[in-house]
Amino acid sequence: MDILLIAPVAGLVSIAFAIYLFFYVNKQDAGTQKMQEIAAAIQEGSNAYLKRQYMTLTVFVTVMAIILAVFLRLEVALVYVIGSVCSGLAGLFGMTVALKANVRTTNAAKVNPNKAFPIAFYGGAAMGLAVVGMALLGISILYYIYPDPTVIFGFSLGASSIALFAKAGGGIYTKTADIGADLVGKVEAGIPEDDPRNPAVIADNVGDNVGEVAGAGADLFDSYVGSIVAAMTVGLGLGAIGIVLPILFAAMGIFASIVGALFVRGKPSSALNKGTFSTCGIFAVLAYLLITYLNIPNGLGIFYATIAGLIAGIVIGITSDFFTAISSRFVKNIAEAAKSGAAINILTGFSYGLLSIVPPIIGICIATIVAWSFAGTYGIAMSAVGMLSITGIIVSADAYGPIVDNAKGIAEMSNLGEDVVESADKLDAIGNTAKAITKGFAIGAAALTVLALFTAYTEVVGIVGLDLTNPYVMVGVFAGAFMPPLFAALLILAVGKNAFKMVEEVRRQFREIPGIMEGTGKPDYARCVDIATKGALKEFIVPCVLAIVTPLAVGFILGKYALGGFLAGSIVTGIVFALMMANSGAAWDNAKKYIEEGNLGGKGSDTHKAAVIGDTVGDPFKDTAGPSLNTLIVVISLVATVFAPLILKYALFG
Amino acid sequence: MDILLIAPVAGLVSIAFAIYLFFYVNKQDAGTQKMQEIAAAIQEGSNAYLKRQYMTLTVFVTVMAIILAVFLRLEVALVYVIGSVCSGLAGLFGMTVALKANVRTTNAAKVNPNKAFPIAFYGGAAMGLAVVGMALLGISILYYIYPDPTVIFGFSLGASSIALFAKAGGGIYTKTADIGADLVGKVEAGIPEDDPRNPAVIADNVGDNVGEVAGAGADLFDSYVGSIVAAMTVGLGLGAIGIVLPILFAAMGIFASIVGALFVRGKPSSALNKGTFSTCGIFAVLAYLLITYLNIPNGLGIFYATIAGLIAGIVIGITSDFFTAISSRFVKNIAEAAKSGAAINILTGFSYGLLSIVPPIIGICIATIVAWSFAGTYGIAMSAVGMLSITGIIVSADAYGPIVDNAKGIAEMSNLGEDVVESADKLDAIGNTAKAITKGFAIGAAALTVLALFTAYTEVVGIVGLDLTNPYVMVGVFAGAFMPPLFAALLILAVGKNAFKMVEEVRRQFREIPGIMEGTGKPDYARCVDIATKGALKEFIVPCVLAIVTPLAVGFILGKYALGGFLAGSIVTGIVFALMMANSGAAWDNAKKYIEEGNLGGKGSDTHKAAVIGDTVGDPFKDTAGPSLNTLIVVISLVATVFAPLILKYALFG
Repeated sequence: MDILLIAPVAGLVSIAFAIYLFFYVNKQDAGTQKMQEIAAAIQEGSNAYLKRQYMTLTVFVTVMAIILAVFLRLEVALVYVIGSVCSGLAGLFGMTVALKANVRTTNAAKVNPNKAFPIAFYGGAAMGLAVVGMALLGISILYYIYPDPTVIFGFSLGASSIALFAKAGGGIYTKTADIGADLVGKVEAGIPEDDPRNPAVIADNVGDNVGEVAGAGADLFDSYVGSIVAAMTVGLGLGAIGIVLPILFAAMGIFASIVGALFVRGKPSSALNKGTFSTCGIFAVLAYLLITYLNIPNGLGIFYATIAGLIAGIVIGITSDFFTAISSRFVKNIAEAAKSGAAINILTGFSYGLLSIVPPIIGICIATIVAWSFAGTYGIAMSAVGMLSITGIIVSADAYGPIVDNAKGIAEMSNLGEDVVESADKLDAIGNTAKAITKGFAIGAAALTVLALFTAYTEVVGIVGLDLTNPYVMVGVFAGAFMPPLFAALLILAVGKNAFKMVEEVRRQFREIPGIMEGTGKPDYARCVDIATKGALKEFIVPCVLAIVTPLAVGFILGKYALGGFLAGSIVTGIVFALMMANSGAAWDNAKKYIEEGNLGGKGSDTHKAAVIGDTVGDPFKDTAGPSLNTLIVVISLVATVFAPLILKYALFG
Repeated sequence: MDILLIAPVAGLVSIAFAIYLFFYVNKQDAGTQKMQEIAAAIQEGSNAYLKRQYMTLTVFVTVMAIILAVFLRLEVALVYVIGSVCSGLAGLFGMTVALKANVRTTNAAKVNPNKAFPIAFYGGAAMGLAVVGMALLGISILYYIYPDPTVIFGFSLGASSIALFAKAGGGIYTKTADIGADLVGKVEAGIPEDDPRNPAVIADNVGDNVGEVAGAGADLFDSYVGSIVAAMTVGLGLGAIGIVLPILFAAMGIFASIVGALFVRGKPSSALNKGTFSTCGIFAVLAYLLITYLNIPNGLGIFYATIAGLIAGIVIGITSDFFTAISSRFVKNIAEAAKSGAAINILTGFSYGLLSIVPPIIGICIATIVAWSFAGTYGIAMSAVGMLSITGIIVSADAYGPIVDNAKGIAEMSNLGEDVVESADKLDAIGNTAKAITKGFAIGAAALTVLALFTAYTEVVGIVGLDLTNPYVMVGVFAGAFMPPLFAALLILAVGKNAFKMVEEVRRQFREIPGIMEGTGKPDYARCVDIATKGALKEFIVPCVLAIVTPLAVGFILGKYALGGFLAGSIVTGIVFALMMANSGAAWDNAKKYIEEGNLGGKGSDTHKAAVIGDTVGDPFKDTAGPSLNTLIVVISLVATVFAPLILKYALFG
């Protein structure tokens, strides 16, 4: 069992590397006084929000921990708290680095994009490596203390529930600010994005950090842990090696990600993909060597299953890009449709979003069948581990996006001139492409993880078959199916409600503050930050608590079969809505950008105005509801699995 | 078995009554020369479209019949053709009556709404009674010739495939014309709805007939037949009475609907609901008497199961109304949201559409569990029969809507003055409320029917358990889940594409025809009718053929377990999307109407313009994609069941 030591070592190396990158970023020049002032304002708003969010979460975690300790086992409660803390720390660390990297990227962009690129990327990579490092270190130490995968589920649940709150709250925040800033600033007042005269501009930049850096890191943290724990549980039947193998593969993934991050160099436009692909290749080689060295029964079958998941992840990422890239025929059609007005633009984007569901689902289906053929249910679980093995590099590329977005904002707000803004813009465009791929990847990863968790659930509750002709199962499927749409609806309504308030406030400031448009009157940024903060903190609690209470209600009232159906139902609609929302949102966004590049009448034309409406509809689709759905289905599966012993004892029917 | 004679008798009585109503409507005064001219133009366009649609369908039916005859059995092919013809005839008859009733309703509205109401309602009732009469007569005669429910599935498949094409084609037609007429006429040129100067106005009125009369009749025809045949199949295990009981209950439903139709009198605003509720009451009494008379084992249990379905249907109808009525708080919130622009209006309506999924699904779940507790799987099938027993009166109320909509259009186009238009408007408002309820009902009916068909499928293929932990089942569920979104996307894209052409044509006519706005130049109505016709006929084939081919592909490649999962997956997302689309569409529509009533700035304000965009997005949601999804899931289930014997023999895997 000495080989298991690889895992904590990999975790520690990853964390050490992340800290090194933090110092690398920190020692770069932060630019002029003005730039630093703006960066400080963003930092202040971000930290204030995160602090208040974590205070709310502390209450929630405490309550959950007490419930777990009283009704289940003390260890589960303890492990749960550790999971929550790890997830929270990873988010906090990632955001701290990002808040240093943004202004330093802007400053380097004064020279040229090639000099700025590594700062932004290493800022993101610090987050990526911290996430996987903390996760694997946590799992391997806990497994050493409690060699029982079902206890480790507590760790996973802790990480996931924090992720759910972080994504929902951050998602509401970021889009409240973004829509508020755009609708009044860009559309009504006609000033550019990130113009310092816009009162909501700081809130908008804060949103990128709390929504996209902290939120996204937490999201993949949770799928990553979920996939490993699920595979460990399913592996119970195969003896010690079945439990340990997922941890070892994850360690290989970390080494591959660290080396892969070093491959991110050269021309920025292709550097990120080079990093991702080399990580995949290195992981495959390391995993193959490991499996050969271990010489376990059906080792090669398990290896193929793992690789099937990895390939599916890449394919899903690429198809998202196919539907949403600015050069895509679909995006051009959406832009064309805006010529007949906003309605047709929206209908076209929505339809392509629906169409974009098909290829990733086929990818997931093929991966599932292939993995199962090679290694049974363990194969399905390991395919999720395979897909998530490259999480380190994926989060790195994902966190790069909001850093350069912020960098661009700081360039605009500090009046650094056209050249610097353009240079930052180039980096931003690379971030958008990367984001399309990583978002698709995150959804696919959640899908495979949840399939693995679903298998783990059936093993934990000891269901032999989950028969769809049993009406309890079918009723469970139906009930589970409405959870993701319900959750999405509540988040979107929250954005709508808060954006409404933000719009009123920004309009008020433009009306009441003298000289604001001329640049002589200073907008009240803090007030807008406050509206976004309070709104998000108020609105994210109900949907998140609902997400945890509903599966419990179904389980305790209708029993374990209905709850199994519930998981299946929520997985299916969760993935459908997550893909549709992420992709249609990204496609509307790029259709607008395509017009802004000067096509079909360009900026300010009626066609452009119609496309802006489509983009605004897409904002909470792609950045609030869509990405939260991944986390939602993971949380539902984990709640079901962790509480299974109680449900088996106390269910009313079924 | 003499009692079985009740069924064909009920069918014949229903048809006779429908024909009587036709003559009643026909003998009313059709009004002035001008009115008759306009009515003739609508009639001509409608007949031309239906003729071409039926020609296309003849090709399709012939091909399918040959396939069925060669690969399955000659009887199935024969019965399939009969089902198609019955469904087609019902649609044609209903539309013919509606095209007579519209102008006669307008003429009677010159006196007052109370005089016009019965003409419109009896026009709708002729359709309603023809649908159920043809269906039950067909099933009972065929069952007499082939006493084998699995053969009768062919009849059901025939009816459903025609319904699918009719709904998809008609739905594309109606919204192409509607959006084209609105976007240019109302928004750009600023002329009222149904203004004779609008070149697309005749096409718009044709659309109501081919989309909403012919289409909606076909839709419920197909659920109605499907529920009866499914219950007959599931009833096989209970012996002769199990097979016959669904037919007998359907006969009771017909008698109840005929009597219920006579209760539709008095104040128009409450008359339709009076008819529906009395039909429910009469059916319950008749069914109870029948079950007591038959004195079969667990008769009372079956009765309760049947009534559970009926109640669920009513509850689902009422909750749709709760979310979409013009007086609803939700609709007012959507209108409020339009104050911040079209995007927030759309996001709010979309979110409420998602929320509106929850109550009907809970209703379906409760009905399923209750029915199953009382009478097992047969109970589930009979609950569908119970829900659909009142189809006669539901279709009557449903077809009333487009008739009065047309009547209003004719009043506007013939310049009959404010009073008549207002009088027609009142009738139209009643139609909209009725439509919200009947649409919810149609979706609920399809859901229960498909659950019954799903059970029938598992019995036909002899699956003992459809285990979700079997990866083939799970893969099937995923693949099934993307069918409804894919289908919806293709239909919406078709509407967008055709509406784009229509917009261009209407703009061209306004530009090029001299004196068109002054009323001296005559618009080229025929050209717009032609664009809508050609567009619909071109675009409806691919999605419909896909709907039939995909389940076959899944079955033949992945086997019967995957196909079972496919059915379950398509049911779940089918219902979710159907409810969301129907309800958000209706809510946007009413939010716009609420503003038009003078609230929040009224007509012409920016808030109103934003709400018009929301309404236009909702148009294909509620009238094209949404209602086609019911039919889609029924067709998928029937294709699977009819082709099951072949799939069992030739499947590649599974």
